[in-house]
Amino acid sequence: MRQPHITSAFDQDIDGLYSRILTMGGMVEQAISEAGRALESRDDERAAEVIRADREIDAMEDDINTAVVSTIALRQPAAADLRAVVTVMKMAGDLERLGDYAKNMAKRVPVLAQAQGVDGAGAALRRQSRLVQLMLKDALDGFARGDLDLVRDVIQRDVEVDQMTNALFREFLTHMMEDPRAITPCLHFLFISKNLERMGDHVTEICEQVIYLETGARPELRPKGDVTSQMTAEQGGA
Amino acid sequence: MRQPHITSAFDQDIDGLYSRILTMGGMVEQAISEAGRALESRDDERAAEVIRADREIDAMEDDINTAVVSTIALRQPAAADLRAVVTVMKMAGDLERLGDYAKNMAKRVPVLAQAQGVDGAGAALRRQSRLVQLMLKDALDGFARGDLDLVRDVIQRDVEVDQMTNALFREFLTHMMEDPRAITPCLHFLFISKNLERMGDHVTEICEQVIYLETGARPELRPKGDVTSQMTAEQGGA
Repeated sequence: MRQPHITSAFDQDIDGLYSRILTMGGMVEQAISEAGRALESRDDERAAEVIRADREIDAMEDDINTAVVSTIALRQPAAADLRAVVTVMKMAGDLERLGDYAKNMAKRVPVLAQAQGVDGAGAALRRQSRLVQLMLKDALDGFARGDLDLVRDVIQRDVEVDQMTNALFREFLTHMMEDPRAITPCLHFLFISKNLERMGDHVTEICEQVIYLETGARPELRPKGDVTSQMTAEQGGA
Repeated sequence: MRQPHITSAFDQDIDGLYSRILTMGGMVEQAISEAGRALESRDDERAAEVIRADREIDAMEDDINTAVVSTIALRQPAAADLRAVVTVMKMAGDLERLGDYAKNMAKRVPVLAQAQGVDGAGAALRRQSRLVQLMLKDALDGFARGDLDLVRDVIQRDVEVDQMTNALFREFLTHMMEDPRAITPCLHFLFISKNLERMGDHVTEICEQVIYLETGARPELRPKGDVTSQMTAEQGGA
């Protein structure tokens, strides 16, 4: 993570903060994975558990922010050390938002369990959520090991998530045009896919924080593949 | 804003930060207002200007974050002063996100300008965006004047934005069921309305930051009125 040097009180604080970020990240990974499974298997119980667990993720963010503020107040870090604690706070914010999106996904499970099924939709969204979860896992590993190649690779993979969203938009729009009974479930699927696209953006932001932390430089321009704001059903039907 | 006391270098820094937040807030208010107008009048030019101006909002956030970090490094503030600078950073983050949502709204204008019109949709979304813009205006005024009654009132008003989203969801879903040609425009309208609902949440977060700044206490539980994640077309059709 950082160069080894004589252990100070500040180092102990920052090690504690990093380990809390990794714990929080693990909780969010779990939430994304479980929300994806709940969606595919139309499992209300599993979805309810994701919603419940989100409170712990929120509490974790509060803990981290409190610890960051007290570290700054007590240790008065300068330069690189200050950058490290500020980065921790930003990462916690992104993780909290990722948890929120997973909760939102889970909230849609009960109404989808009642609605008409749409062939392959649950499986496709599960695959997309798996992609985001693996991006997050590698982003956290990259953070833990200071592995910039790995986090840069994660940033590139966000394009896949965007492309998957575009493809699913076309598919769900076609279903909606063909069968009015598919409108309700497809609408929820569209929101879930769009949320996953935004989740990919938050993982990208975490990666950018890691790059900033390690290099002190703002990261390169990120690739963008999401075109859903320009999409029409005419492009969809084909 | 804060109690008057002997002016220190830190006070000058914080006054500078507060004034930048207010400037940034004004830019975001303008973006929300212009995006709403562009949507109602199907005005591509106006929308393009909102998209362009978002870069300045993003640059403003970077400036504020850099200034916050250098204030902490130079002045090493403790307790309430530290809380103030950390709050500034969080508010800048919420404002940046609000600007992003306004940009996303503007991005949908060209495709909507080409699509079949939906009676009253543009006007309804303009009204909803106006509500969010006024919430932001009052949140910023409340911040500038340390007026907790005003920011608490803004938090309450977020329920109206949520209820408007619920009502528009029902309406747009009904249109989609009745006429497949309405699916594309209504889908974009649904995303815009949902974004406005989230924008209300970000304004609420800004208000909560103001409360935290002034009282040092975490704010009360916020009211929630958004039920779109449970919504079905059956409830919509009526």
